[in-house]
Amino acid sequence: MEKLKVSIVGATGYAGKELVKILMNHPKVELVYLTSSTYTGENIDEVFPEFLNKLNKKLTNFDLELISQNSDLVFTALPHTVSMNVVPELLKKGVKVVDLSADYRIKDPVVYKEWYKKEHNQISKGLLSEAVYGLPEIYLDKIKDAPLVANPGCYPTSIILGIAPLLKFKLVDSQGIIIDSKSGATGAGRKLSLDLHFSECNENFKAYKIIKHNHIPEVEQELSSIYFGGDDCRQQGTEIKICFTPHLLPINRGILSTCYLNLNGSKEEKEILKVYQKFYQEAPFVRIFEPPNLPEIKFVTGTNYCDIGFSIDKRVGKIKIISVIDNLLKGAAGQAVQNMNIMSGFSETEGIN
Amino acid sequence: MEKLKVSIVGATGYAGKELVKILMNHPKVELVYLTSSTYTGENIDEVFPEFLNKLNKKLTNFDLELISQNSDLVFTALPHTVSMNVVPELLKKGVKVVDLSADYRIKDPVVYKEWYKKEHNQISKGLLSEAVYGLPEIYLDKIKDAPLVANPGCYPTSIILGIAPLLKFKLVDSQGIIIDSKSGATGAGRKLSLDLHFSECNENFKAYKIIKHNHIPEVEQELSSIYFGGDDCRQQGTEIKICFTPHLLPINRGILSTCYLNLNGSKEEKEILKVYQKFYQEAPFVRIFEPPNLPEIKFVTGTNYCDIGFSIDKRVGKIKIISVIDNLLKGAAGQAVQNMNIMSGFSETEGIN
Amino acid sequence: MEKLKVSIVGATGYAGKELVKILMNHPKVELVYLTSSTYTGENIDEVFPEFLNKLNKKLTNFDLELISQNSDLVFTALPHTVSMNVVPELLKKGVKVVDLSADYRIKDPVVYKEWYKKEHNQISKGLLSEAVYGLPEIYLDKIKDAPLVANPGCYPTSIILGIAPLLKFKLVDSQGIIIDSKSGATGAGRKLSLDLHFSECNENFKAYKIIKHNHIPEVEQELSSIYFGGDDCRQQGTEIKICFTPHLLPINRGILSTCYLNLNGSKEEKEILKVYQKFYQEAPFVRIFEPPNLPEIKFVTGTNYCDIGFSIDKRVGKIKIISVIDNLLKGAAGQAVQNMNIMSGFSETEGIN
Amino acid sequence: MEKLKVSIVGATGYAGKELVKILMNHPKVELVYLTSSTYTGENIDEVFPEFLNKLNKKLTNFDLELISQNSDLVFTALPHTVSMNVVPELLKKGVKVVDLSADYRIKDPVVYKEWYKKEHNQISKGLLSEAVYGLPEIYLDKIKDAPLVANPGCYPTSIILGIAPLLKFKLVDSQGIIIDSKSGATGAGRKLSLDLHFSECNENFKAYKIIKHNHIPEVEQELSSIYFGGDDCRQQGTEIKICFTPHLLPINRGILSTCYLNLNGSKEEKEILKVYQKFYQEAPFVRIFEPPNLPEIKFVTGTNYCDIGFSIDKRVGKIKIISVIDNLLKGAAGQAVQNMNIMSGFSETEGIN
Repeated sequence: MEKLKVSIVGATGYAGKELVKILMNHPKVELVYLTSSTYTGENIDEVFPEFLNKLNKKLTNFDLELISQNSDLVFTALPHTVSMNVVPELLKKGVKVVDLSADYRIKDPVVYKEWYKKEHNQISKGLLSEAVYGLPEIYLDKIKDAPLVANPGCYPTSIILGIAPLLKFKLVDSQGIIIDSKSGATGAGRKLSLDLHFSECNENFKAYKIIKHNHIPEVEQELSSIYFGGDDCRQQGTEIKICFTPHLLPINRGILSTCYLNLNGSKEEKEILKVYQKFYQEAPFVRIFEPPNLPEIKFVTGTNYCDIGFSIDKRVGKIKIISVIDNLLKGAAGQAVQNMNIMSGFSETEGIN
Repeated sequence: MEKLKVSIVGATGYAGKELVKILMNHPKVELVYLTSSTYTGENIDEVFPEFLNKLNKKLTNFDLELISQNSDLVFTALPHTVSMNVVPELLKKGVKVVDLSADYRIKDPVVYKEWYKKEHNQISKGLLSEAVYGLPEIYLDKIKDAPLVANPGCYPTSIILGIAPLLKFKLVDSQGIIIDSKSGATGAGRKLSLDLHFSECNENFKAYKIIKHNHIPEVEQELSSIYFGGDDCRQQGTEIKICFTPHLLPINRGILSTCYLNLNGSKEEKEILKVYQKFYQEAPFVRIFEPPNLPEIKFVTGTNYCDIGFSIDKRVGKIKIISVIDNLLKGAAGQAVQNMNIMSGFSETEGIN
Repeated sequence: MEKLKVSIVGATGYAGKELVKILMNHPKVELVYLTSSTYTGENIDEVFPEFLNKLNKKLTNFDLELISQNSDLVFTALPHTVSMNVVPELLKKGVKVVDLSADYRIKDPVVYKEWYKKEHNQISKGLLSEAVYGLPEIYLDKIKDAPLVANPGCYPTSIILGIAPLLKFKLVDSQGIIIDSKSGATGAGRKLSLDLHFSECNENFKAYKIIKHNHIPEVEQELSSIYFGGDDCRQQGTEIKICFTPHLLPINRGILSTCYLNLNGSKEEKEILKVYQKFYQEAPFVRIFEPPNLPEIKFVTGTNYCDIGFSIDKRVGKIKIISVIDNLLKGAAGQAVQNMNIMSGFSETEGIN
Repeated sequence: MEKLKVSIVGATGYAGKELVKILMNHPKVELVYLTSSTYTGENIDEVFPEFLNKLNKKLTNFDLELISQNSDLVFTALPHTVSMNVVPELLKKGVKVVDLSADYRIKDPVVYKEWYKKEHNQISKGLLSEAVYGLPEIYLDKIKDAPLVANPGCYPTSIILGIAPLLKFKLVDSQGIIIDSKSGATGAGRKLSLDLHFSECNENFKAYKIIKHNHIPEVEQELSSIYFGGDDCRQQGTEIKICFTPHLLPINRGILSTCYLNLNGSKEEKEILKVYQKFYQEAPFVRIFEPPNLPEIKFVTGTNYCDIGFSIDKRVGKIKIISVIDNLLKGAAGQAVQNMNIMSGFSETEGIN
């Protein structure tokens, strides 16, 4: 069988690098172009010596014609607000796209503009309704036929997978949801910043973007859709609002989200367990922990799993969900390849792990 | 002026060691006995080479007579349920005690037994009402004359200081309080455990004791007292209940608590700031951060400060409080010395920092 | 083709766990028994939740009959001095063995006894000459037919591979070799020890076993053999002696050895580079870095590579070699599987990476 | 008594910040100006919230007139090659200077130019012979009267203190000295660099500047002077040359240097211990460890100590010295204040620790 020809636009950020690592060993993929504006012309093993003797490939500039002519599918791993300049062109050329930025995740262009301070142009705006939110555990069927998949954010992946079953079956109140998330430092990318300097992060822990993290609208859109169903949820006052606080962990990889929800009536942990097990029975990358066991970040580091555990706090009528992922894999590159597999008719787990 | 003669029972745990470090340089203190059941007979600089050339002192066994005859004040830094065997004897001999265990923090012996699985004997039970909860920012006057101070737990210190002003002035709902806390590894003590093995903690993050952490009743007792006033709050159904989740950070020292409360009506951050500033205007070890600035663990590492910041999340009608301390200082040894200073008529900050 | 039936004795130490991880995905291997004296009867995913949904296997006690009847090859991942009780029995039953302990690495039983404080019994002693030192880059042909392979130690692997070419071609003095090695904390195993407690290791660095680390005789035996050839080197006074200092790094995985040797006469880096490239041209897991590039631990973490770089310090007539490995892979489990591949006629890299 | 008026030029680098921390609590010092070109006009607690409520001071631009008129002594904590533009001006105005850069450490301007790629101008060149190398354990008397003290580098402090007694008494060969040093990340300063990004340093370890680290000439100058005496050592061929390799540790603070020297004849550890104890008997900040005890970085973190331990490796006729310091204290700011104390007639330990 002929291999799927794949290119990566933005191959030298942390997510791009992980894409390369997965795809270079993917049995059904042929890597074509790896672009990098910073390292154009260098070999990838000069930038990342880890690739020495494993992958011999030059980093190129983004060339729409060359890439679209020679690729069946392209991963765009560009910063938010930059991706939208490239994705419509690639689609017009008939190439499938998995976009790792936030640019096509938010269905409502007004909301996108409010949180990302940039407006979609007309063509790009038209793609918003067409783009499928690439969370396979929720949108498997839509992803199969999508030309454009908007790969979810790292925090949203951990949160939505963590609490979707509770909302879907209305086991909890849709209001009063609190999400306290903690992420490793790669979540902030490879861009230089004093905040991410080793001596500043190490032996430290802090909250950041405490009110306005731009993953909030993405989570709220998806939770509302799961809870209310369809797209009719976006009426004033009916949509779910979350209270979200991200924190920076002094580790390289991993996200742990602690989610607090108000249970509707009294429930036993066994009931909840069954609901989760059923909801995720076809999902190869979600693992449910039986109480009192709880997932830890190290259980998923280097994997595409989302591990979920929970506990009912009867004293206060709440349920706590602990959800962990590797932010660079299930939270970015791993999930992107999972989406590619689905879009290409491969097994969902092909080439992952 | 003659110095205060001080002994430390349990000088080789993490809190005990910090007590030694502070007190050896305290201008008004003479260290008399340092006891250690594990290292009896060794010099402290053999156990902790940090003390080489700085403190030349043998570790002794606990000898009630010798210690009580030669000490004005004793710090008991023993495990929970062990301290209660020693504290009454010391008090009977006329020695003042600052107890770093939980044994005298909980006023209600039934509650203590429920959470710590051990019963106080009659004499010890009698001390419960006499013991003063050693949070100087709340109980300054009571501490002055107390023969027995129950030094607060590390999580409770960060939480109670973080939200006391909100409850005191009923700016928030007393129900629905959620506390998501993260602690460094010294919080778990020096006892061997695979969970605290370097390769198990490092590059990891996890929740633990997710439902039944025994700091809960301590926090609830104090928050209820602050909110309802006096001790009449302990009527069935009127007391405050919190939803609390502790997590283990891969750092040595520090606690960050993220507290979520429901605001009563709409408030501006400036109002809240004023309330906090006024509440803590006489407290030398509490620093209030003006929004949008937020405290980080590294700001307080190695200090006795509790740094507090906050943010109002108008979208959901909640206020988030971020409170950080060094768990071994404001969360243990530093606060204990602060209590000793108050009990002895010294300046509250004497010898600290 | 039928798969190779493989068992692991001691599957729950750090090296044993890595063996399981590699072998469960090895296309030519069927895992039969995993033994653990500590966790007998538990499922491996109860001990290590990482294996949840990936490997469903009970940990058993060591049963010689069952294991030898149902295994073609056994990995023994037991502590030094314990392995020798098991290995001869397995061999007698006709099973091939890759032993990860030090028990069969040292050819001379007197030397073994001197460093490991235990004596081989007669049968075990007889195996010493038969056992092949499992460093494939040096002993490829011997390993092919060996029933018993003594898998090298982690420090020795990094050191011997790092400097073998220099000694082989006598480019350096055989005397005055200094090796300064630094290892991550998994190198010390999973046994509890206050030294390996998170708060003791973290933000710390130290030398340990500064004179008598028991990897010294292993390195000296192999370097002497490479330099002098054959086994006739073990004459009094002619063998190589190294000055070796191990240090403990506050990271999970990885060893970096900095090796200092006296160059024989003046050499250019280009010449040395050629020698190394040629020496390792058939070695799939050794990568040579062209000066001034140098390997770092992170380049090999999670891989079976040994990365080698060097620099000539003309001011003092010395050559410095930097050699890095993942101590659990090329320094233990990865190399063990590489040996298994060779012993079984598989491709050397099969199932690794 | 009137306090010493002190200013810091470059107060917001890592060393400058430590200077502020020490001097704000120094009983005999009044802090006058803190300059910062990056943060001019900001309050120091805006740049470093650690200073909140502790130090209320504006950061200013460098103003020669204001500073020299109002300061008795100035610390210049500027980058190498920048300091030389400021120091001569300050001295001309009659102000004493402790310079933390390398600009006045190297006596020979030709050597300085060779390693730092910049030439001293005539006035600055004239100061080279006048400047005293600020290692109090060696140059106590000269420092007392010096108007300009060149504060030693961090690596040189750990190395020179570590091996000075051996060279002074010619107990070792002056040739073949190998120094393998490991430093925490603050050693590289606060300047942004991808190499010092958290995710790049964390869980990594590497050698760097493996041949040409510019601390080499400083160490060689001082070791030669100690060994040969006086300044007549700088004759071609008679000076000491070291083989030095620095490495980057994933910790914030601390240096450990492992030094390998060839012993002259056979020596017992007891003899060596006596030599060290005598050599440092008047040095309040050097602690000698009795074999087999060895210092670790954590013993000195946050202190001005240099801890030294050693071991004789009789098998190879070498002595290994382990020397540890906190790179920001004894390796920079702490030692600078120690020098200030000596220059000002204060007790050597005043205000330190």
